[in-house]
Amino acid sequence: MRCSVVAVGTELLLGQIVDTNSSWLGEQLAAAGIDSLFQVKVGDNLARIVATLRATLAEADAIIICGGLGPTHDDITREAIAQIMDVELEMNDEVALVIEQMFTARGRRMPENNLRQAMVPRGAKIIEQRRGTAPGLICPVGEKVMYAVPGVPFELFEMFERAILPDLLARSGEASVIKSRVLRTWGDSESGLNERLISVINELEQVGNPTLAFLASGWEGIKVRLTAKANTDQQAVDLLDVWDAKVRAQVGDLVFGVDEQNMEVVVLKLLRDKKLTLGVAESVTGGLVAGRLTAVVGASDVFRGGIISYASDIKFDLLSVTHGPVVSEAAAKEMAIGARKILGSDIGLALTGVAGPTEQDGVKVGTLCVGVALSNDDVRATTFSLPFGREQMRQFSVISSLNFLRQSLI
Amino acid sequence: MRCSVVAVGTELLLGQIVDTNSSWLGEQLAAAGIDSLFQVKVGDNLARIVATLRATLAEADAIIICGGLGPTHDDITREAIAQIMDVELEMNDEVALVIEQMFTARGRRMPENNLRQAMVPRGAKIIEQRRGTAPGLICPVGEKVMYAVPGVPFELFEMFERAILPDLLARSGEASVIKSRVLRTWGDSESGLNERLISVINELEQVGNPTLAFLASGWEGIKVRLTAKANTDQQAVDLLDVWDAKVRAQVGDLVFGVDEQNMEVVVLKLLRDKKLTLGVAESVTGGLVAGRLTAVVGASDVFRGGIISYASDIKFDLLSVTHGPVVSEAAAKEMAIGARKILGSDIGLALTGVAGPTEQDGVKVGTLCVGVALSNDDVRATTFSLPFGREQMRQFSVISSLNFLRQSLI
Repeated sequence: MRCSVVAVGTELLLGQIVDTNSSWLGEQLAAAGIDSLFQVKVGDNLARIVATLRATLAEADAIIICGGLGPTHDDITREAIAQIMDVELEMNDEVALVIEQMFTARGRRMPENNLRQAMVPRGAKIIEQRRGTAPGLICPVGEKVMYAVPGVPFELFEMFERAILPDLLARSGEASVIKSRVLRTWGDSESGLNERLISVINELEQVGNPTLAFLASGWEGIKVRLTAKANTDQQAVDLLDVWDAKVRAQVGDLVFGVDEQNMEVVVLKLLRDKKLTLGVAESVTGGLVAGRLTAVVGASDVFRGGIISYASDIKFDLLSVTHGPVVSEAAAKEMAIGARKILGSDIGLALTGVAGPTEQDGVKVGTLCVGVALSNDDVRATTFSLPFGREQMRQFSVISSLNFLRQSLI
Repeated sequence: MRCSVVAVGTELLLGQIVDTNSSWLGEQLAAAGIDSLFQVKVGDNLARIVATLRATLAEADAIIICGGLGPTHDDITREAIAQIMDVELEMNDEVALVIEQMFTARGRRMPENNLRQAMVPRGAKIIEQRRGTAPGLICPVGEKVMYAVPGVPFELFEMFERAILPDLLARSGEASVIKSRVLRTWGDSESGLNERLISVINELEQVGNPTLAFLASGWEGIKVRLTAKANTDQQAVDLLDVWDAKVRAQVGDLVFGVDEQNMEVVVLKLLRDKKLTLGVAESVTGGLVAGRLTAVVGASDVFRGGIISYASDIKFDLLSVTHGPVVSEAAAKEMAIGARKILGSDIGLALTGVAGPTEQDGVKVGTLCVGVALSNDDVRATTFSLPFGREQMRQFSVISSLNFLRQSLI
């Protein structure tokens, strides 16, 4: 099964918007075992859209067309599809009614051009709109098919998962359910993970289902994605459970979270479950650890606050760090104790390091010392050598320090 | 002049990497008045790359091909180009020498496959490599041309500006120099800016050079980009100076920076010029202001540190804020005074607000109070109503507060 993607919109060609929809679709299609051979961006020009659809469809079994379904005069995907199908556009009264009701519900007058969105090529099937005003379309062309979805990402994602992927799978004669699970890891490289998991990977190559893929996600860690095909949801989940356990048996506690659970969410949950509060002292990261933690809704019942001790004398005077080298495990421990005390938290987490561009007091760029004070008597510290590049070093510091805290808590 | 873009790489189709190169190129081409009608992603498959190049070249005067120039067996852009040009690949000894010297200089042995990068289609011109190992290529095909550049963004950007854009302009018979200047603004909407600038825009439509474009950049502000064409660098700069002044005459101090100067850089420079140090107290942003400031190299000679007073009692006990509503201008002022005192800085900046998802003590989501203490006696505060969405509200808070500090300093 080959499914190409055509993204419509002059704003994409002008670089005003980066086309992330195609990438997202490519990832989803690949996980479902569907090849995406071409992805094309084309502007809001009827002749060029028609030519692109025709050429792309010649080389594929299906196309997903993103964008150009809105109400304005430059939204012409419907017209292009009708030309390829060689049919007329017809007003779909049900769709029109839904659009009118959306405006009524918001107490707003509907501009007349919104009814353009209710025009449907004869013979096309509607993908009901649930998040926006424009419906999606399923448009058969002989044995092949074109899907049209709005360019708004959250509308597109929902329609793809609800209507397009199931239709593609049915057409391909594949199992009807595809489920993925992402195991998030931190602490080893992609090649290191590959080595640890080689027996599992070999076994998976024999059985063919589920598939396993590594997704390097920078300072979010490396994700191990398992994708299972099955006839029912439950069968897919059962299969994922089996291989989830096999992966964990090899990589141990490198797995810190599942699916949407990033490191911040995991650490906050761990603290909440243990009824512990947290205070931080940051130097090299200058507030990024606290910034990431407080991005999570509900952080306030765990996170009390932080001291950003960027200047050394703030470390000495406010956090009571002993005068001496400030990028050291000893300083990190004292900073953690100081944060715990000043902020009145159960746990203190501290970071001190060198982000560069130049080394500091003989300490190399990329050095990070992390301290964790679990109590006044149980204080730990460790040192990391992180990748260069100021932004990269600082972001890696955030997740490395939170992972050290996580490990200290379990 | 029509120039399409072909991005080569299976990883792009699989969504492992988002193709930002094409968007960047589209933006640069548009600024130079060159149309980009199609942008295509194709995998590492020789037949499909050749077919894509042939089809794309048929509809354009030029193509820029990104990626597939590396040393491994799946880097086959050179082979595809040779097929289109109907020529052989030849080893270019000069390029080979440069690559060997790069490895020698780093004291590393060169794996043999690196010499693949020295293979050049006969008749192609080299774009000397300055940042990576692979050179770029300028490949004439009759009256048309194909450019090939590495997919690594910072290599691609440099080659485009140094070699491809000048070559495209020469071919188009256009003025030989194109220069842009970006005026960064904060404090008005795109439509608001459009209204203020309507007389300038109308005048520009008459003269046609330079062009003016708005680039909405979220919490980085709205950029007004002027792009001038001229015969010499100096003429282009002179033209930009004239229209820069005309824009500023209309939008006044909404312009906070030029080109790469973001708000953090501007504020740090302003403080440094005035020999003032800064300390911050953050609540709603939880460290993001300090995190952004410390992302700038050299922040340490201005930025002393911060207090993240997420829990209310830290505001009261550590920052000496009077007990009462914590999201108020009064509290923001006291936080700024407290930050200044505790951190021993000349200036104190404080933020307190409601990021949501729910309102807090009757204060609406999106409310931000900012305090600036220039001295113990000169303390100012203001209130913003920012867009909803936790992440968005917090990021808008960062730039809004820094802009208020900037205005307070001038």
